[in-house]
Amino acid sequence: MRSLSTISRAVPQLIARATLRVDTDGPGLIEITADAAEFLRKSGAGDGVLLVFLRHTSASLTIQENADPDVQRDLVTALQRLAPEDAGWVHDTEGPDDMPAHVKAMLTGVSLHIPVEAGRLVLGTWQGVYLIEHRRQPHAREVVFQFLGASR
Amino acid sequence: MRSLSTISRAVPQLIARATLRVDTDGPGLIEITADAAEFLRKSGAGDGVLLVFLRHTSASLTIQENADPDVQRDLVTALQRLAPEDAGWVHDTEGPDDMPAHVKAMLTGVSLHIPVEAGRLVLGTWQGVYLIEHRRQPHAREVVFQFLGASR
Amino acid sequence: MRSLSTISRAVPQLIARATLRVDTDGPGLIEITADAAEFLRKSGAGDGVLLVFLRHTSASLTIQENADPDVQRDLVTALQRLAPEDAGWVHDTEGPDDMPAHVKAMLTGVSLHIPVEAGRLVLGTWQGVYLIEHRRQPHAREVVFQFLGASR
Repeated sequence: MRSLSTISRAVPQLIARATLRVDTDGPGLIEITADAAEFLRKSGAGDGVLLVFLRHTSASLTIQENADPDVQRDLVTALQRLAPEDAGWVHDTEGPDDMPAHVKAMLTGVSLHIPVEAGRLVLGTWQGVYLIEHRRQPHAREVVFQFLGASR
Repeated sequence: MRSLSTISRAVPQLIARATLRVDTDGPGLIEITADAAEFLRKSGAGDGVLLVFLRHTSASLTIQENADPDVQRDLVTALQRLAPEDAGWVHDTEGPDDMPAHVKAMLTGVSLHIPVEAGRLVLGTWQGVYLIEHRRQPHAREVVFQFLGASR
Repeated sequence: MRSLSTISRAVPQLIARATLRVDTDGPGLIEITADAAEFLRKSGAGDGVLLVFLRHTSASLTIQENADPDVQRDLVTALQRLAPEDAGWVHDTEGPDDMPAHVKAMLTGVSLHIPVEAGRLVLGTWQGVYLIEHRRQPHAREVVFQFLGASR
């Protein structure tokens, strides 16, 4: 069974952009949902879409469960198993965790979008937006938020 | 050899949004290309882009071959191999297929876009849009379609 | 520590679209960053977003390091390990490298976006946009570029 809801319409009036800087401290998921919501609020966003982009090749973005922290721990484990450090990578000049970080970033991606209704993210009940840090050393990461849509 | 075509231009006039509800019944790919086309038709979409978003963390979206059903079967097998159930996950309170489902959703993603020309999806010959269900139990899933672009 | 920059705003005036045709010659990453920049220049793009879409199911897109070519070699190796040819795929009528190509395309994806500021891609220092060819035979591939945003 499947059904399509009625259609809501708005007029695109605004493109807003800001950069979020996040300091990371080793592998793991860092939730940025509240930062995205703050950006939308300050932008005067109405109906439209939030675009999220990460300006790096050894970290990435994902939308994942924000209820049980064990999920995030297991996601990091899963990525380590898919891209292990001791796998004979040719590129190893930047440390044993660099090439695995690139593989993890390729598999999870650095751009995504979320629908916005009246300035609020149309996320599912259990969804949160996360930056995934893949390197062991501390890093300063830049996330670019953009809103395209109607003004509030 | 590479070449860039001439550029077509339009004026953004419309943001439309609707939610597709899909009932799933175990792991597999469910094609939603016709539902996306119906949404575009009802929206009065012209030139622009279709944004697709899934509001869940244990199912995901992909664009894949719609010719041979064996491809879809093999894609499910591939995901099971990349995220097996008996891999010692910490998070197991929601059943043995829950944590693998989160890993599969992270690897395939919950947001994507497709170009739209005169209200029609600019898909390749063999491309279809699919929801991938990763859980064994029946689930009700929500897909958010959005169109940004010119009106027809 | 995290901080959100000030917000810049623009008015959406333009949707531009063009198709890039690329001939490939076996597995590997092909950089299309300069082609994307050329498209933006010819489109008269100002502030907004570049949307990139690939019309195929056995090739895909990624944003990855453009400094050391060894990284690209290792990324291809990583994908081959995640989707090996001799894994007993049901779908094998189009050659042993076809089903692995579909799996690789599912894991890396065929749509992505990059923010645009004053007509220029807001990529990180080490980021380039790549088409990933997964098939051994030569192929003609089509990439759809779209710009949504303000005119210059």
